[in-house]
Amino acid sequence: MSWLTLFVFLGACMAAATTGALFQPGEWYRRLDKPVWTPPDWLFPIAWTGLYIAMAVAAWRVAYAEAALVPLGLALWACQIALNTLWTPIFFGLRRLQAGLIVLSLLWIAVVATTIVFFAIDTLSGWLFLPYVVWVSYAGALNYSLLVRNPSEKPLLPGEIST
Amino acid sequence: MSWLTLFVFLGACMAAATTGALFQPGEWYRRLDKPVWTPPDWLFPIAWTGLYIAMAVAAWRVAYAEAALVPLGLALWACQIALNTLWTPIFFGLRRLQAGLIVLSLLWIAVVATTIVFFAIDTLSGWLFLPYVVWVSYAGALNYSLLVRNPSEKPLLPGEIST
Repeated sequence: MSWLTLFVFLGACMAAATTGALFQPGEWYRRLDKPVWTPPDWLFPIAWTGLYIAMAVAAWRVAYAEAALVPLGLALWACQIALNTLWTPIFFGLRRLQAGLIVLSLLWIAVVATTIVFFAIDTLSGWLFLPYVVWVSYAGALNYSLLVRNPSEKPLLPGEIST
Repeated sequence: MSWLTLFVFLGACMAAATTGALFQPGEWYRRLDKPVWTPPDWLFPIAWTGLYIAMAVAAWRVAYAEAALVPLGLALWACQIALNTLWTPIFFGLRRLQAGLIVLSLLWIAVVATTIVFFAIDTLSGWLFLPYVVWVSYAGALNYSLLVRNPSEKPLLPGEIST
Protein backbone atom coordinates (compact mmCIF):
# COMPACT_ATOMS: atom_id res chain seq x y z
CA MET A 1 0.00 0.00 0.00
CA SER A 2 1.58 3.25 -1.16
CA TRP A 3 1.40 6.30 1.10
CA LEU A 4 1.30 8.45 -2.05
CA THR A 5 -2.10 6.97 -2.95
CA LEU A 6 -3.45 7.88 0.51
CA PHE A 7 -2.01 11.36 0.14
CA VAL A 8 -3.79 11.77 -3.25
CA PHE A 9 -7.13 10.59 -1.82
CA LEU A 10 -6.65 13.16 0.97
CA GLY A 11 -5.90 15.72 -1.74
CA ALA A 12 -9.25 14.99 -3.37
CA CYS A 13 -10.90 15.53 0.03
CA MET A 14 -9.05 18.82 0.49
CA ALA A 15 -10.35 20.01 -2.87
CA ALA A 16 -13.87 19.24 -1.68
CA ALA A 17 -13.21 20.84 1.71
CA THR A 18 -11.97 24.04 0.04
CA THR A 19 -15.55 24.85 -0.93
CA GLY A 20 -16.47 25.03 2.76
CA ALA A 21 -13.70 27.56 3.36
CA LEU A 22 -14.45 29.70 0.29
CA PHE A 23 -18.26 29.62 0.35
CA GLN A 24 -18.80 30.79 3.92
CA PRO A 25 -22.40 30.66 5.25
CA GLY A 26 -22.45 34.44 5.91
CA GLU A 27 -25.29 36.73 6.88
CA TRP A 28 -27.69 35.13 4.39
CA TYR A 29 -27.51 31.72 6.13
CA ARG A 30 -27.75 33.24 9.61
CA ARG A 31 -30.95 35.05 8.58
CA LEU A 32 -32.68 31.82 7.41
CA ASP A 33 -35.49 30.34 9.52
CA LYS A 34 -33.81 27.19 10.92
CA PRO A 35 -35.00 24.16 12.97
CA VAL A 36 -33.90 23.89 16.61
CA TRP A 37 -31.78 20.85 15.73
CA THR A 38 -29.56 22.85 13.40
CA PRO A 39 -25.93 22.08 14.26
CA PRO A 40 -23.79 24.99 15.55
CA ASP A 41 -21.43 26.44 12.89
CA TRP A 42 -18.33 25.28 14.81
CA LEU A 43 -19.38 21.63 14.40
CA PHE A 44 -19.12 21.59 10.59
CA PRO A 45 -15.29 21.84 10.24
CA ILE A 46 -14.75 19.32 13.05
CA ALA A 47 -17.19 16.80 11.61
CA TRP A 48 -15.89 17.20 8.07
CA THR A 49 -12.24 16.82 9.08
CA GLY A 50 -13.05 13.48 10.64
CA LEU A 51 -15.24 12.38 7.75
CA TYR A 52 -12.67 13.32 5.10
CA ILE A 53 -9.85 11.46 6.86
CA ALA A 54 -12.05 8.39 7.32
CA MET A 55 -13.22 8.36 3.68
CA ALA A 56 -9.64 8.77 2.39
CA VAL A 57 -8.35 5.88 4.53
CA ALA A 58 -11.29 3.73 3.45
CA ALA A 59 -10.60 4.39 -0.25
CA TRP A 60 -6.92 3.68 0.30
CA ARG A 61 -7.64 0.28 1.88
CA VAL A 62 -10.14 -0.63 -0.83
CA ALA A 63 -7.80 0.47 -3.62
CA TYR A 64 -5.29 -2.20 -2.56
CA ALA A 65 -7.81 -4.93 -1.81
CA GLU A 66 -8.11 -7.96 -4.09
CA ALA A 67 -11.81 -8.04 -4.99
CA ALA A 68 -13.92 -7.88 -8.14
CA LEU A 69 -15.88 -4.93 -6.73
CA VAL A 70 -12.83 -2.64 -6.30
CA PRO A 71 -13.32 -0.82 -9.65
CA LEU A 72 -16.97 -0.08 -8.84
CA GLY A 73 -16.07 0.95 -5.29
CA LEU A 74 -13.46 3.48 -6.43
CA ALA A 75 -15.75 4.78 -9.18
CA LEU A 76 -18.43 5.38 -6.53
CA TRP A 77 -15.86 7.11 -4.30
CA ALA A 78 -14.91 9.45 -7.16
CA CYS A 79 -18.57 10.16 -7.82
CA GLN A 80 -19.33 10.98 -4.19
CA ILE A 81 -16.34 13.34 -3.84
CA ALA A 82 -17.45 15.24 -6.96
CA LEU A 83 -21.01 15.54 -5.60
CA ASN A 84 -19.57 16.52 -2.21
CA THR A 85 -17.56 19.31 -3.89
CA LEU A 86 -20.64 20.42 -5.83
CA TRP A 87 -23.08 20.91 -2.94
CA THR A 88 -21.54 23.79 -0.96
CA PRO A 89 -21.21 26.21 -3.92
CA ILE A 90 -24.80 25.47 -4.97
CA PHE A 91 -26.21 25.93 -1.49
CA PHE A 92 -24.09 28.79 -0.12
CA GLY A 93 -22.95 30.28 -3.42
CA LEU A 94 -26.17 30.25 -5.39
CA ARG A 95 -28.60 29.88 -2.44
CA ARG A 96 -30.42 27.22 -4.43
CA LEU A 97 -32.04 25.23 -1.62
CA GLN A 98 -33.94 22.92 -3.97
CA ALA A 99 -30.98 22.20 -6.24
CA GLY A 100 -28.96 21.67 -3.08
CA LEU A 101 -31.44 19.07 -1.89
CA ILE A 102 -31.25 17.26 -5.22
CA VAL A 103 -27.45 17.15 -5.09
CA LEU A 104 -27.54 16.01 -1.45
CA SER A 105 -29.97 13.24 -2.38
CA LEU A 106 -27.62 12.07 -5.15
CA LEU A 107 -24.70 12.35 -2.71
CA TRP A 108 -26.65 10.25 -0.18
CA ILE A 109 -27.23 7.55 -2.79
CA ALA A 110 -23.54 7.59 -3.80
CA VAL A 111 -22.36 7.44 -0.18
CA VAL A 112 -24.75 4.60 0.74
CA ALA A 113 -23.75 2.67 -2.41
CA THR A 114 -20.06 3.23 -1.64
CA THR A 115 -20.61 2.03 1.93
CA ILE A 116 -22.33 -1.17 0.77
CA VAL A 117 -19.65 -1.95 -1.81
CA PHE A 118 -16.86 -1.08 0.65
CA PHE A 119 -18.38 -3.41 3.27
CA ALA A 120 -18.36 -6.19 0.66
CA ILE A 121 -14.65 -5.56 -0.01
CA ASP A 122 -13.21 -4.62 3.39
CA THR A 123 -15.30 -4.50 6.56
CA LEU A 124 -13.24 -1.76 8.21
CA SER A 125 -13.63 0.46 5.15
CA GLY A 126 -17.37 -0.02 5.39
CA TRP A 127 -17.36 1.01 9.05
CA LEU A 128 -15.23 4.06 8.20
CA PHE A 129 -18.02 5.21 5.84
CA LEU A 130 -20.95 4.76 8.23
CA PRO A 131 -20.53 8.13 10.05
CA TYR A 132 -20.59 9.77 6.61
CA VAL A 133 -23.97 8.11 5.85
CA VAL A 134 -25.31 9.45 9.15
CA TRP A 135 -23.97 12.95 8.51
CA VAL A 136 -25.27 13.22 4.93
CA SER A 137 -28.69 11.99 6.15
CA TYR A 138 -28.64 14.71 8.81
CA ALA A 139 -27.53 17.35 6.26
CA GLY A 140 -30.28 16.21 3.91
CA ALA A 141 -32.91 16.59 6.60
CA LEU A 142 -31.55 20.04 7.40
CA ASN A 143 -31.51 21.11 3.73
CA TYR A 144 -35.11 19.90 3.35
CA SER A 145 -36.21 21.72 6.50
CA LEU A 146 -34.57 24.98 5.34
CA LEU A 147 -36.27 24.63 1.96
CA VAL A 148 -39.71 24.20 3.54
CA ARG A 149 -39.20 26.95 6.15
CA ASN A 150 -37.86 29.50 3.65
CA PRO A 151 -40.09 29.21 0.54
CA SER A 152 -39.48 32.77 -0.63
CA GLU A 153 -35.67 32.50 -0.86
CA LYS A 154 -34.54 33.59 -4.31
CA PRO A 155 -31.47 32.04 -5.99
CA LEU A 156 -28.43 34.24 -6.57
CA LEU A 157 -27.07 34.76 -10.09
CA PRO A 158 -23.40 35.69 -9.49
CA GLY A 159 -22.83 36.52 -13.16
CA GLU A 160 -25.46 39.28 -13.08
CA ILE A 161 -24.24 41.01 -9.93
CA SER A 162 -22.28 44.22 -10.47
CA THR A 163 -19.77 45.06 -7.72
CA MET B 1 -15.55 -4.82 -17.18
CA SER B 2 -18.87 -3.73 -15.68
CA TRP B 3 -20.92 -1.11 -17.51
CA LEU B 4 -22.17 0.09 -14.10
CA THR B 5 -18.63 1.22 -13.24
CA LEU B 6 -18.44 3.26 -16.46
CA PHE B 7 -21.85 4.73 -15.70
CA VAL B 8 -20.65 5.79 -12.22
CA PHE B 9 -17.48 7.40 -13.62
CA LEU B 10 -19.73 9.29 -16.07
CA GLY B 11 -21.87 10.27 -13.07
CA ALA B 12 -18.85 11.81 -11.40
CA CYS B 13 -18.19 13.77 -14.59
CA MET B 14 -21.80 14.93 -14.74
CA ALA B 15 -21.49 16.24 -11.17
CA ALA B 16 -18.45 18.24 -12.26
CA ALA B 17 -20.19 19.39 -15.45
CA THR B 18 -23.18 20.64 -13.42
CA THR B 19 -21.07 23.53 -12.18
CA GLY B 20 -20.73 24.77 -15.77
CA ALA B 21 -24.50 24.79 -16.15
CA LEU B 22 -25.24 26.44 -12.80
CA PHE B 23 -22.42 28.98 -12.67
CA GLN B 24 -23.01 30.66 -16.02
CA PRO B 25 -20.37 33.19 -17.15
CA GLY B 26 -22.94 36.02 -17.31
CA GLU B 27 -22.45 39.76 -17.80
CA TRP B 28 -19.49 39.90 -15.44
CA TYR B 29 -17.40 37.56 -17.62
CA ARG B 30 -18.45 39.27 -20.85
CA ARG B 31 -17.28 42.61 -19.43
CA LEU B 32 -13.78 41.31 -18.59
CA ASP B 33 -10.79 42.44 -20.75
CA LYS B 34 -9.96 39.22 -22.63
CA PRO B 35 -7.14 38.11 -24.99
CA VAL B 36 -7.94 37.64 -28.69
CA TRP B 37 -7.37 33.90 -28.35
CA THR B 38 -10.23 33.51 -25.89
CA PRO B 39 -12.41 30.59 -27.03
CA PRO B 40 -16.02 31.41 -28.04
CA ASP B 41 -18.59 30.51 -25.34
CA TRP B 42 -20.15 27.82 -27.54
CA LEU B 43 -16.89 25.83 -27.58
CA PHE B 44 -16.86 25.13 -23.83
CA PRO B 45 -19.80 22.66 -23.63
CA ILE B 46 -18.64 20.84 -26.77
CA ALA B 47 -15.06 20.50 -25.55
CA TRP B 48 -16.09 19.45 -22.09
CA THR B 49 -18.56 16.83 -23.31
CA GLY B 50 -15.78 15.16 -25.26
CA LEU B 51 -13.28 15.48 -22.43
CA TYR B 52 -15.66 14.06 -19.81
CA ILE B 53 -16.54 11.03 -21.95
CA ALA B 54 -12.87 10.38 -22.70
CA MET B 55 -11.79 10.66 -19.05
CA ALA B 56 -14.63 8.36 -17.90
CA VAL B 57 -13.72 5.67 -20.46
CA ALA B 58 -10.04 5.98 -19.52
CA ALA B 59 -10.80 5.51 -15.82
CA TRP B 60 -13.05 2.55 -16.65
CA ARG B 61 -10.29 0.81 -18.62
CA VAL B 62 -7.68 1.50 -15.92
CA ALA B 63 -10.01 0.33 -13.14
CA TYR B 64 -10.09 -3.17 -14.66
CA ALA B 65 -6.42 -3.31 -15.63
CA GLU B 66 -4.01 -5.60 -13.76
CA ALA B 67 -1.22 -3.26 -12.69
CA ALA B 68 0.40 -2.12 -9.44
CA LEU B 69 -0.27 1.52 -10.33
CA VAL B 70 -4.07 1.16 -10.64
CA PRO B 71 -4.77 2.37 -7.05
CA LEU B 72 -2.66 5.49 -7.56
CA GLY B 73 -4.19 6.09 -10.99
CA LEU B 74 -7.76 5.98 -9.66
CA ALA B 75 -6.84 8.13 -6.64
CA LEU B 76 -5.43 10.73 -9.06
CA TRP B 77 -8.59 10.51 -11.16
CA ALA B 78 -10.75 11.17 -8.07
CA CYS B 79 -8.51 14.10 -7.12
CA GLN B 80 -8.71 15.68 -10.58
CA ILE B 81 -12.52 15.38 -10.76
CA ALA B 82 -12.84 17.10 -7.37
CA LEU B 83 -10.51 19.92 -8.50
CA ASN B 84 -12.41 20.09 -11.80
CA THR B 85 -15.69 20.52 -9.86
CA LEU B 86 -14.09 23.15 -7.64
CA TRP B 87 -12.78 25.55 -10.32
CA THR B 88 -15.98 26.84 -11.96
CA PRO B 89 -17.72 27.97 -8.73
CA ILE B 90 -14.54 29.74 -7.59
CA PHE B 91 -14.00 31.49 -10.92
CA PHE B 92 -17.57 32.29 -12.01
CA GLY B 93 -19.25 32.15 -8.59
CA LEU B 94 -16.76 34.04 -6.48
CA ARG B 95 -14.90 35.83 -9.33
CA ARG B 96 -11.64 34.89 -7.63
CA LEU B 97 -9.26 34.94 -10.58
CA GLN B 98 -6.18 34.25 -8.45
CA ALA B 99 -7.72 31.42 -6.46
CA GLY B 100 -9.01 30.07 -9.77
CA LEU B 101 -5.48 30.06 -11.17
CA ILE B 102 -4.21 28.19 -8.10
CA VAL B 103 -6.93 25.54 -8.44
CA LEU B 104 -6.28 25.26 -12.20
CA SER B 105 -2.55 24.78 -11.52
CA LEU B 106 -3.34 21.98 -9.05
CA LEU B 107 -5.78 20.52 -11.58
CA TRP B 108 -3.09 20.66 -14.27
CA ILE B 109 -0.67 18.77 -12.00
CA ALA B 110 -3.35 16.17 -11.19
CA VAL B 111 -4.29 15.72 -14.86
CA VAL B 112 -0.67 15.42 -16.02
CA ALA B 113 0.09 12.94 -13.21
CA THR B 114 -3.02 10.93 -14.08
CA THR B 115 -2.00 10.90 -17.74
CA ILE B 116 1.51 9.62 -16.93
CA VAL B 117 0.21 6.89 -14.62
CA PHE B 118 -2.54 5.93 -17.08
CA PHE B 119 0.02 5.64 -19.92
CA ALA B 120 2.03 3.28 -17.70
CA ILE B 121 -1.07 1.12 -17.13
CA ASP B 122 -2.96 1.26 -20.44
CA THR B 123 -1.66 3.20 -23.48
CA LEU B 124 -5.12 4.00 -24.84
CA SER B 125 -6.21 5.46 -21.50
CA GLY B 126 -3.15 7.68 -21.61
CA TRP B 127 -4.05 8.91 -25.10
CA LEU B 128 -7.63 9.54 -23.96
CA PHE B 129 -6.26 11.95 -21.32
CA LEU B 130 -3.93 13.95 -23.61
CA PRO B 131 -6.63 16.32 -24.98
CA TYR B 132 -7.53 17.09 -21.35
CA VAL B 133 -3.89 18.09 -20.65
CA VAL B 134 -3.99 20.41 -23.67
CA TRP B 135 -7.34 21.94 -22.65
CA VAL B 136 -6.37 22.54 -19.00
CA SER B 137 -3.10 24.14 -20.19
CA TYR B 138 -5.13 26.42 -22.47
CA ALA B 139 -7.59 27.24 -19.66
CA GLY B 140 -4.70 27.97 -17.31
CA ALA B 141 -3.17 30.39 -19.80
CA LEU B 142 -6.57 32.06 -20.22
CA ASN B 143 -7.12 32.33 -16.44
CA TYR B 144 -3.63 33.85 -16.04
CA SER B 145 -4.25 36.32 -18.86
CA LEU B 146 -7.60 37.40 -17.37
CA LEU B 147 -5.95 37.86 -13.97
CA VAL B 148 -3.23 40.08 -15.42
CA ARG B 149 -5.62 42.07 -17.68
CA ASN B 150 -8.19 42.67 -14.93
CA PRO B 151 -6.20 43.56 -11.77
CA SER B 152 -9.01 45.56 -10.17
CA GLU B 153 -11.59 42.73 -10.17
CA LYS B 154 -12.97 42.29 -6.67
CA PRO B 155 -14.07 38.86 -5.36
CA LEU B 156 -17.76 38.31 -4.67
CA LEU B 157 -18.94 37.28 -1.17
CA PRO B 158 -22.29 35.53 -1.84
CA GLY B 159 -23.07 35.26 1.89
CA GLU B 160 -23.03 39.05 2.29
CA ILE B 161 -25.26 39.88 -0.68
CA SER B 162 -28.84 40.80 0.18
CA THR B 163 -31.40 40.07 -2.53
